[in-house]
Amino acid sequence: MSEERKNRITVEILGQQYVIIGKESPNHIRHVATTVDEKMKEIRNKNTFLDTNQLAVLTAVNAVNEYIKLKEKYDRLQERLNQLESDTNQ
Amino acid sequence: MSEERKNRITVEILGQQYVIIGKESPNHIRHVATTVDEKMKEIRNKNTFLDTNQLAVLTAVNAVNEYIKLKEKYDRLQERLNQLESDTNQ
Repeated sequence: MSEERKNRITVEILGQQYVIIGKESPNHIRHVATTVDEKMKEIRNKNTFLDTNQLAVLTAVNAVNEYIKLKEKYDRLQERLNQLESDTNQ
Repeated sequence: MSEERKNRITVEILGQQYVIIGKESPNHIRHVATTVDEKMKEIRNKNTFLDTNQLAVLTAVNAVNEYIKLKEKYDRLQERLNQLESDTNQ
């Protein structure tokens, strides 16, 4: 349990309503939901044979893939910044 | 159509098989699938009332949320790096 204030936002994804609970702002949560809705529609247009469940799993796979690739880029950037800061301080 | 070589990997997520096609390495694709499988199980443990479809959509929502937050951090880091590089070159 946490004392932190959480927002409770109802969003619509592929025509179905979901209640999202998070400490992020309502605007951020709505932006996330719109992104998921758009990604699901994009994948559905390319793979018309998928059922909603497979579509949702593949959307999750795509999002995690993008996250992991960005995390690797982020770590490389952080390393370069550390190096540059340490050079600057010498 | 693209001339780029693509990998076609069968993975298992929540006991169901999916064929993932991507230019990423087989190891990367398996790592992504394992991460999605773990995230779905984690969300299912906390929300036992969800069906698989809702579970997959909420997993996608979580992954996109993490991606967007990391992207904001990445952009700030990139800006700091640009600033530092421009200071160093003056």
